[in-house]
Amino acid sequence: MMSTILDIYPSRVAVPAGFIPRKDPAVYSEVHSGGTGYLTEDEVAFYEENGYLCFQNLFSEKEVSNYQQELQKLKESEATKRSSEVILEPGSSEVRSIFKVHQSNSIFRRLARDRRIVDVVSFLLNSAVYIHQSRINYKPGMHGKEFFWHSDFETWHMEDGMPRMRAISCSISLSENNEFNGPLMLIPGSHRYFLPCVGETPENHYLQSLRKQDYGVPDGDSLQWLVDQGGIVSAKGPAGSATFFECNTMHGSNSNISPWPRSNVFYVYNSVENALTQSFCGLSPRPEYIATREVEVVEPL
Amino acid sequence: MMSTILDIYPSRVAVPAGFIPRKDPAVYSEVHSGGTGYLTEDEVAFYEENGYLCFQNLFSEKEVSNYQQELQKLKESEATKRSSEVILEPGSSEVRSIFKVHQSNSIFRRLARDRRIVDVVSFLLNSAVYIHQSRINYKPGMHGKEFFWHSDFETWHMEDGMPRMRAISCSISLSENNEFNGPLMLIPGSHRYFLPCVGETPENHYLQSLRKQDYGVPDGDSLQWLVDQGGIVSAKGPAGSATFFECNTMHGSNSNISPWPRSNVFYVYNSVENALTQSFCGLSPRPEYIATREVEVVEPL
Repeated sequence: MMSTILDIYPSRVAVPAGFIPRKDPAVYSEVHSGGTGYLTEDEVAFYEENGYLCFQNLFSEKEVSNYQQELQKLKESEATKRSSEVILEPGSSEVRSIFKVHQSNSIFRRLARDRRIVDVVSFLLNSAVYIHQSRINYKPGMHGKEFFWHSDFETWHMEDGMPRMRAISCSISLSENNEFNGPLMLIPGSHRYFLPCVGETPENHYLQSLRKQDYGVPDGDSLQWLVDQGGIVSAKGPAGSATFFECNTMHGSNSNISPWPRSNVFYVYNSVENALTQSFCGLSPRPEYIATREVEVVEPL
Repeated sequence: MMSTILDIYPSRVAVPAGFIPRKDPAVYSEVHSGGTGYLTEDEVAFYEENGYLCFQNLFSEKEVSNYQQELQKLKESEATKRSSEVILEPGSSEVRSIFKVHQSNSIFRRLARDRRIVDVVSFLLNSAVYIHQSRINYKPGMHGKEFFWHSDFETWHMEDGMPRMRAISCSISLSENNEFNGPLMLIPGSHRYFLPCVGETPENHYLQSLRKQDYGVPDGDSLQWLVDQGGIVSAKGPAGSATFFECNTMHGSNSNISPWPRSNVFYVYNSVENALTQSFCGLSPRPEYIATREVEVVEPL
């Protein structure tokens, strides 16, 4: 007899459906008065309420300079350009993203295990974690394209079979983020609502969606409502700043015509208790470099 | 015998050429100690140095509300959508710009003659002025597209035959401009250098260029240099703010994925002593609604 899983977060629906209230906690640990050792009580409360946390200068100038050099080396490498784990800018041969850097590169593998990140996400998710996805994003100066609003969880749930909201992204900026170079924008509080998106997902959608998203796109009225509630914030700060955001927090970015690039390295930590099942849109799984199915616990360094 | 005009600001060249230092004053009037009655001495000096001036709340809430209503009425009018003076968003039937509103619309005709604008530009240009171009720009929320860096003078000189740098644009915001909705960005001090652009101009270029610019586009190294000198500023502020900028000031804007539209009304005042000649790229003149050839002095109200 075939068993079916009840999908508590349905999406890619035929007609617009309203918001579904979040059915999972944002903070899985119990908060102890006086802070946790990793986060203050206020920081935990802020994350729970808003779905994100920004830390300026989490990494030192020296560390950042090391990562920047590695970034540049990877970008210029011919091997990189030929790799299937690399996404190019639309209509160009310029590198936009490199995936799976937590496995393919020793420096970014080490960074993925840094205590300043892992302790925070393990605490918030109250469990050991593994890396669901990692990547470097190059947002070049002058021609960096916008990325429309989306919830990562919507995609990971529908296309990868991530069962519940128990994952956190950490974006570490490797260049200054300012109001001119298309910084990450977040809608505070949006993680508390799951927004079903309209449209059936085509096979091999990922080949297009990482360049330009056509499915899993929120409708305008719902976005307007979320912004009416929570406004918009942007993650600005010097290189070495880190932004943690909940997997269902609505985010996006504008284009970048400034000459200043906006690069970052991006890790998604999923609870080991939230490992992937079959995808909820019934399609074959996306490749391992986009959605890891092998649960390998991240041991903090 | 045919006479030829020596072009002191050549552009649309075959190979990249360096900057040409500006050969015209930015402020044509002599500044009198203690201010001019329209601008303080500091404001005049700021404009001369930076090529722009921003005034928050130059227009009252009541005035702005009146303009906003007219804006909405025009946008929804079927006559507007059919007019050749209207530019649509790329790949959409949404109205992006309406030209020649200083002639076609009584409210915006009156605004064009407002003393708070006309006295300032007449003083800086030290002459009577006429309107070279006017338009309303609708930058819709969610899907407003970026507009790459450009000098308006480069286009007006090459395509319209504007002889010298003796014109000023005034943009009046009719919605809040903030860091999220793709505000006008300017490079301070860029008006002091003329940047020849590469590429011969095709016939009827204007039909495309008002949607997406492919000619008259500055090269990346030169833009980087200008930004290294002057940085970038953006014209943020509540509806009713006004930004005056010199015709050669390099400007552009990023996309707008926020739900907040960014609309403005835009007038270009040219000195009556700087009326159009034949175009410097040898093509037939652009239509009257884009580049007025009839010099009608603007009498301030």
